Amino acid sequence: MARREETEQEAAAPPTYRPMTSAPTLGVGMVGYAFMGAAHSQGWRTAGHVFELPMRPALAAICGRDRTAVEAAADRHGWAAAETDWRALIARDDVQLVDICTPGDSHAEIAIAALEAGKHVLCEKPLANTVAEAEAMTEAAERAAARGQVALVGFNYRKVPAITYARKLIAEGRLGPLRHIRATYLQDWLVDPGSPLTWRLEREHAGSGALGDLGAHIVDLAQFLAGELLVGVSAVTETFVRERPLRSGPSAGLSGVAATGARGAVTVDDAALFTGRLASGALASFEATRMAAGRKNALRLEINGERGSLAFDLERLNELSFHDHTEPATTAGFRRILVTEPEHPYLEAWWPPGHALGYEHTFIHQARDVVRTIAEGTAPTPSFADGLQVQRVLAAVEESAAKSSVHTPVHIPAQL
Amino acid sequence: MARREETEQEAAAPPTYRPMTSAPTLGVGMVGYAFMGAAHSQGWRTAGHVFELPMRPALAAICGRDRTAVEAAADRHGWAAAETDWRALIARDDVQLVDICTPGDSHAEIAIAALEAGKHVLCEKPLANTVAEAEAMTEAAERAAARGQVALVGFNYRKVPAITYARKLIAEGRLGPLRHIRATYLQDWLVDPGSPLTWRLEREHAGSGALGDLGAHIVDLAQFLAGELLVGVSAVTETFVRERPLRSGPSAGLSGVAATGARGAVTVDDAALFTGRLASGALASFEATRMAAGRKNALRLEINGERGSLAFDLERLNELSFHDHTEPATTAGFRRILVTEPEHPYLEAWWPPGHALGYEHTFIHQARDVVRTIAEGTAPTPSFADGLQVQRVLAAVEESAAKSSVHTPVHIPAQL
Amino acid sequence: MARREETEQEAAAPPTYRPMTSAPTLGVGMVGYAFMGAAHSQGWRTAGHVFELPMRPALAAICGRDRTAVEAAADRHGWAAAETDWRALIARDDVQLVDICTPGDSHAEIAIAALEAGKHVLCEKPLANTVAEAEAMTEAAERAAARGQVALVGFNYRKVPAITYARKLIAEGRLGPLRHIRATYLQDWLVDPGSPLTWRLEREHAGSGALGDLGAHIVDLAQFLAGELLVGVSAVTETFVRERPLRSGPSAGLSGVAATGARGAVTVDDAALFTGRLASGALASFEATRMAAGRKNALRLEINGERGSLAFDLERLNELSFHDHTEPATTAGFRRILVTEPEHPYLEAWWPPGHALGYEHTFIHQARDVVRTIAEGTAPTPSFADGLQVQRVLAAVEESAAKSSVHTPVHIPAQL
Amino acid sequence: MARREETEQEAAAPPTYRPMTSAPTLGVGMVGYAFMGAAHSQGWRTAGHVFELPMRPALAAICGRDRTAVEAAADRHGWAAAETDWRALIARDDVQLVDICTPGDSHAEIAIAALEAGKHVLCEKPLANTVAEAEAMTEAAERAAARGQVALVGFNYRKVPAITYARKLIAEGRLGPLRHIRATYLQDWLVDPGSPLTWRLEREHAGSGALGDLGAHIVDLAQFLAGELLVGVSAVTETFVRERPLRSGPSAGLSGVAATGARGAVTVDDAALFTGRLASGALASFEATRMAAGRKNALRLEINGERGSLAFDLERLNELSFHDHTEPATTAGFRRILVTEPEHPYLEAWWPPGHALGYEHTFIHQARDVVRTIAEGTAPTPSFADGLQVQRVLAAVEESAAKSSVHTPVHIPAQL
Repeated sequence: MARREETEQEAAAPPTYRPMTSAPTLGVGMVGYAFMGAAHSQGWRTAGHVFELPMRPALAAICGRDRTAVEAAADRHGWAAAETDWRALIARDDVQLVDICTPGDSHAEIAIAALEAGKHVLCEKPLANTVAEAEAMTEAAERAAARGQVALVGFNYRKVPAITYARKLIAEGRLGPLRHIRATYLQDWLVDPGSPLTWRLEREHAGSGALGDLGAHIVDLAQFLAGELLVGVSAVTETFVRERPLRSGPSAGLSGVAATGARGAVTVDDAALFTGRLASGALASFEATRMAAGRKNALRLEINGERGSLAFDLERLNELSFHDHTEPATTAGFRRILVTEPEHPYLEAWWPPGHALGYEHTFIHQARDVVRTIAEGTAPTPSFADGLQVQRVLAAVEESAAKSSVHTPVHIPAQL
Repeated sequence: MARREETEQEAAAPPTYRPMTSAPTLGVGMVGYAFMGAAHSQGWRTAGHVFELPMRPALAAICGRDRTAVEAAADRHGWAAAETDWRALIARDDVQLVDICTPGDSHAEIAIAALEAGKHVLCEKPLANTVAEAEAMTEAAERAAARGQVALVGFNYRKVPAITYARKLIAEGRLGPLRHIRATYLQDWLVDPGSPLTWRLEREHAGSGALGDLGAHIVDLAQFLAGELLVGVSAVTETFVRERPLRSGPSAGLSGVAATGARGAVTVDDAALFTGRLASGALASFEATRMAAGRKNALRLEINGERGSLAFDLERLNELSFHDHTEPATTAGFRRILVTEPEHPYLEAWWPPGHALGYEHTFIHQARDVVRTIAEGTAPTPSFADGLQVQRVLAAVEESAAKSSVHTPVHIPAQL
Repeated sequence: MARREETEQEAAAPPTYRPMTSAPTLGVGMVGYAFMGAAHSQGWRTAGHVFELPMRPALAAICGRDRTAVEAAADRHGWAAAETDWRALIARDDVQLVDICTPGDSHAEIAIAALEAGKHVLCEKPLANTVAEAEAMTEAAERAAARGQVALVGFNYRKVPAITYARKLIAEGRLGPLRHIRATYLQDWLVDPGSPLTWRLEREHAGSGALGDLGAHIVDLAQFLAGELLVGVSAVTETFVRERPLRSGPSAGLSGVAATGARGAVTVDDAALFTGRLASGALASFEATRMAAGRKNALRLEINGERGSLAFDLERLNELSFHDHTEPATTAGFRRILVTEPEHPYLEAWWPPGHALGYEHTFIHQARDVVRTIAEGTAPTPSFADGLQVQRVLAAVEESAAKSSVHTPVHIPAQL
Repeated sequence: MARREETEQEAAAPPTYRPMTSAPTLGVGMVGYAFMGAAHSQGWRTAGHVFELPMRPALAAICGRDRTAVEAAADRHGWAAAETDWRALIARDDVQLVDICTPGDSHAEIAIAALEAGKHVLCEKPLANTVAEAEAMTEAAERAAARGQVALVGFNYRKVPAITYARKLIAEGRLGPLRHIRATYLQDWLVDPGSPLTWRLEREHAGSGALGDLGAHIVDLAQFLAGELLVGVSAVTETFVRERPLRSGPSAGLSGVAATGARGAVTVDDAALFTGRLASGALASFEATRMAAGRKNALRLEINGERGSLAFDLERLNELSFHDHTEPATTAGFRRILVTEPEHPYLEAWWPPGHALGYEHTFIHQARDVVRTIAEGTAPTPSFADGLQVQRVLAAVEESAAKSSVHTPVHIPAQL
């Protein structure tokens, strides 16, 4: 029950209301149906019911290799059709946008094929497992842009209202010249050495470990919030548990661990720490780990500037902490802003102040932004070029870690 | 991107998966389409895509008095049909459940009619504006129960996982005998004396002010969590701003305030404070107000028992604070539990640990529970009788406030 | 190691420095040497080394009934002499101020005797166990004031810098007209039903339980911060554990509990809850309890006004939380002020920003203020009249609790 | 007023009480009287009144170059005599312990002279400005140890009860094998570019900037808590504001800045960031800065192990945050332990639970430990060798920063 009922009651039927059902359709075809598939489905299903959109997303088809499984996923998540070959998905006439939710090693092939087939693309992060793949994807995106197609990378945390709003405050100069960014992304699901080996812990499939999975997010956010790029890094990575029990289908018990006692090598990092410099000279520090007991999703950011500071914690994603250093010292302090006011980004369509949003709202906001970008012809953001830049930072991190942490420049092409 | 992809990938297609599309349909007809209508729509649209349900909710028809507005709402929120007469909605063959999201003064009439027409009913809180209405509704619900119908009241905050889990801990005895409950529900949208008069501030429509809107929630939660009833209260209520600017359609400016300067009387409470006793002898305190500057949705609870304590804040709804008093004093302390583990209530269907849920998830969970209650024939909870009991507490509060705060028993019929 | 070394280095020897050893002496005689005695000793010993004071406190003599014990206490706490009769202490020529740290039932007799003997008096709170005693003390204080003596009551929490500063913000109008005060003082040392009976749980010695011990503090703070008085209350009190094991010297084991299994009646309250109204019409709520498991010293205050709000928690006493409601909603929020800036009250003499003060600093600040009040002839605050007013509120609370919580006016004499 | 009065009352006079005045005296001579001097004075003055000590600290003499200033400081802080030559101080018969509170560039000379004169030494941190000086001091300490003298370094934060207790939990294995330490020490007093140049910003006096001032503390704490040493680091340092206004005595205005507009070069770091490895393979990260707007004294630590985690923030120094990873996931979470129980380190002598300690208590605890170490002949801790090890880490940090952040081993002699 809420206080704005009357306001919204009127807002529900403004004279200018354009029925969503009369809006043109944007047919979405999604590849992959696991965790990210579920989250993206929620985004596509919901965006048009919350935001007034210029196009109506239609969940046209979902794609996976196992027919039974993909049909169940289509049924569960509300997709009209199921495909088992992503090439067939791309070829469908009712698909105008291909949404790629597969592991990183297949991103390049699918995304490039979709772009060449004239489809818009939304690709999960990290953009690819290698810089070379990401470059090829970015080139394909540039060619496609000339044909009016958009290509976006799924850095969904940019769509947390507190993050979007933090970017606004920084862009307005509320922090002044930046001095420090410190970013951590701490999880704990690998703390137990008996936790099984999966493809996520194998380099050939996952590309890297915490670095690509968690580090990619905080690198993107640091650059997005600062409005400038990292120019060099110094890094160390570590794999604390170098062998883990193998998982095997039939013989695996409740823990998912094979009864045979067989073990396999972990070939990615458990943790990656790095320092870096932004173009302006500000110092940054990053830590991505899956070994921080008790930290479940602790993506934490703090940015200090000459005129103020901001802090954020994804475990409390409705809050933004802001210190205004221009205030008198006696009344200054970090204030906890509940980013739930109607004037805050994305909040015009949601609930009254203080009514929390959650993780999946980032995907609803992403869907909104993708639709608007396509319909309005604005520059896509975050673009494949943004994803490529993150990939270059990750590559510099791995290079530095391999060279005794020596400061390693991030390759930034002239045209950027 | 997440760590449990592989697990969910397999889980997505278990051999026993039952396609949701093959499940029987539960046709929902909703009356009202403002704030609560939007929230309930989100619940009905989403529940079947997230939880495996025995029946598939279908958004059959939505009802409102203004045809243009209700059709726009149907289009926006995904309802198949629109009605302008709630009697017509009830009469529809494709409606098996009537979901009542109107102001409190129409609850009784609609709910009783729907129950008598053989429909299940979900009714927003507070159940009614008077005890007499609530009693009539509860009697109708009891008659309908004999015919296999369910009648539920929308105390959605019971469906916050942290609250549901808190109830479980208390029921298991983790707090021991209870000593104290303190509950506040603080908002600030009436702090500004220039904020306009609306129907929510008029007794004939709203029944009461902060008491029924906010106080009803914390009374219900206190009784739900404690597992016992309030037996008496001592109360004070206050209307700090006794006149407010009138709102008028055509002449209202951006602020919604009439340009004429005309003012009208506020006839409900701005704030209600009361103490109470539970059946076991535990002491409780309650405060509901819309005048707490800076508090947006501060529904806060703390419960102290002989063996431990729990604390909760709706502004951080993914967290539950738990103190285990049986631990050694040197390592004891309130721990911040992120209620996002797969073993926590409702979480089996959501995201990995640390990935936050939001306000609207309470309506998705409510939809899940309503469907299961109907399909499985279990006792409905929270029932109309629960809603009636809350109404009796609110009546005792108003009586005590009118009698110089003297302790006033809550009427509890023998059969309860 | 700190940043302000150079500043302080210079400050240490200003040309105008007046050697403290040349200042006149204020001889202090303290009655009682338990917890409060230790805390007051720390205050008297330290104030002159930290603050530049017009008089130098000298720890002249300490008084207790047991000679061995009081001599040990004198030695431990740095008092020059020990007395076993408080009348002898008062009679000493080297005592100009009598500091009363005994249980409440002896306050009146000692304080009145000291005042009549021409001594200044600082008396621990609560001022007395009854209103009649407090009235007699206040009358004695008024007579003594005419002779230039001061009489103060030890509401030391007014001397927490965050509290003193909160009062300043309110007095400056930063909160606007007040709407709400909510105050709790939660402890947990009686949660265990096996905790022994002591004189603190016997009405004849302690006067009351949580009410006088904890409730007196929050009543005083509410009135001090608001700058206005409580005019009426509605209350409930409870004794959850009505019998406790007897303690006996020789036969008591480690737990302090008699081995005989004998039990005695608890004759004071475990908890007291009350609502109240301030003269301006603002609503207040209070809760004092020793049964809140996990809360050790949770004196929490929140004050809401039309222009802002303040919140405080004694467990984090260096912090003040302030919400400025006149700011734009998008950047407004409760800010955590570290009350450790040199411009904050009492901080001019302490450490650099962010370096925390503790509980005992309230007694050092109290000693500073007592010395200045005496030397400068300013009006004493908190005065015996302030202590009497608190006593009247506590009496109204007990009266209301005895009369089914009916609203009970606080007696406020015409001259106040 | 407090609950343990009766207990303490009895405790105040146990049959075995040994009058402190009968204890042998430990004459202290202190060099330096600025911020650290004030803090150490408070420690020496208070320790014997709070803790039962085997020797009674006597504030024998204080030393500074300016006679007027040092005499004022002696008077203010309670020292019996004043000296203007530290050699004269050392030579005094009533001085058995020399407490060195001067800037780092004079530590070695004074400490070595004092040790060679047969005195015990307590030296502020950092132990010295260079490794060579620290080595010479450590050698002198080892020679003196053979003669029964103790030499300690003032890493006072080890004496925060929460830190001491954290070490105990780790030593007991409650965290299991360590994976991560992250430590920051953030202040903001140099954020303003108009803040003047002082000797603290000049390398010849201060040795380094944030690194030695703040970084030394977190390096020591990391090694102390982990119970193992850092074996290598990779670092970056930065001076954001490279010139600052000169300060000049006569012409300086209120801001302390010379009116001439003259500026001088800052020759130390504003910030230092480094990663490191512990001997066990755990990864550590460190950040020391004076440019973090809004952070006043944010010494924050988090340590993650296979069985649990700990977190600490000096701005809330009475709290320790502990996550026990061996608990069921549903009830696990970081718990806020108030480190104020009588069983916690140092707390046996202080106030009841929940009554906060402050910054200066670290110096009182340090004084207690110094006295006991001397009286009981136990191994001094933190020793000069500990201080030397920290110095070696700082040197490796500076070396790495000068060599493009390349991983640089910390020199650890064989005998350690």
